[in-house]
Amino acid sequence: MHPLIQHIQVMTGSREIDGEKILSFFDTQSFRKKDLLQEEDKLCTAYFFVVKGCLRLFFTDNNGLEQTLQFALENWWMTDLDAFRSGRRSAYSIQALEATEVLALNAKNYALLLEEIPLMEKYFRLMYERAYAASLHRVRMISRMPKNEFYELFASKYPEFAQRIPQKILASFLGFTPEYLSELRKKRTENRHI
Amino acid sequence: MHPLIQHIQVMTGSREIDGEKILSFFDTQSFRKKDLLQEEDKLCTAYFFVVKGCLRLFFTDNNGLEQTLQFALENWWMTDLDAFRSGRRSAYSIQALEATEVLALNAKNYALLLEEIPLMEKYFRLMYERAYAASLHRVRMISRMPKNEFYELFASKYPEFAQRIPQKILASFLGFTPEYLSELRKKRTENRHI
Repeated sequence: MHPLIQHIQVMTGSREIDGEKILSFFDTQSFRKKDLLQEEDKLCTAYFFVVKGCLRLFFTDNNGLEQTLQFALENWWMTDLDAFRSGRRSAYSIQALEATEVLALNAKNYALLLEEIPLMEKYFRLMYERAYAASLHRVRMISRMPKNEFYELFASKYPEFAQRIPQKILASFLGFTPEYLSELRKKRTENRHI
Repeated sequence: MHPLIQHIQVMTGSREIDGEKILSFFDTQSFRKKDLLQEEDKLCTAYFFVVKGCLRLFFTDNNGLEQTLQFALENWWMTDLDAFRSGRRSAYSIQALEATEVLALNAKNYALLLEEIPLMEKYFRLMYERAYAASLHRVRMISRMPKNEFYELFASKYPEFAQRIPQKILASFLGFTPEYLSELRKKRTENRHI
């Protein structure tokens, strides 16, 4: 079964899913490591579901530094949702951090998919509900928590991220310098061995 | 027409809404200014839709200070979504900042409402989609923007908030001292008059 159809099944609990019809709304696209799927300030035309690999969403700040705001591993969705919904230019770039395969959905097909397959309303409702709950939690963490505690929480909640994502990019996501992150990782490993 | 039914109509574009049936899933509750609708560390049993008034969601940090993470004015929803979905204890308190009337939905009725009225899947999908898009934007703002720019953006995007919310609480939400906020407000008023 295709990973997306499996994900829909797990999230909604439904067994009656017309997988072939659902997949007909998507394009399969493959990217090499470091390829850009979306460029900042270009029209946002696609919503990506990660079949295999890893994406990051980032923007370039006033000092010319790339600031990473989100990652997406397998079974995650990624786009500049605001721009995708409104047909505007994207405020972010999206880049493959590994060789990555995605399903891409354009805005017209997103609307059609929701209209023609009511189960997809439930699927996206559940997906956003979870994402929104997590984002509230994240606001609490980044705005209030000491940085070392934030890293500890992140690494224990998302061990796969901490391993797969390049250190420099992870540091930018966490708001650390790469040197500070390296120090925290070292401490964490030492503590584990006690 | 009840504000919730009107909101569903505006969000979904649907004209065929059984308002009476939808409202039967909710309890109407009224609170005085400063009343707590939800206490931190107590079971999270309700999801609130603001009919009239204003709520804030906050927690008490390790230093005993109240930290505000969200506000809800008319037509906004508020709960600790993670706790509400899982039936766990709330990580936050919810307080009325004005005399406030809400519709309260418990978890059982939330599930029933979605099951019995498919249009509500679309309504909540759209509502979370918007909320999630806004939260991504917020992460970008709070983690990267100079504080004075963040206030400027907040005040121009949400002028009603800046007026209705007590300064001390707004300062905590923005991560400012009340004195710093007062300075920014003064500057903003002066610039407007030039």
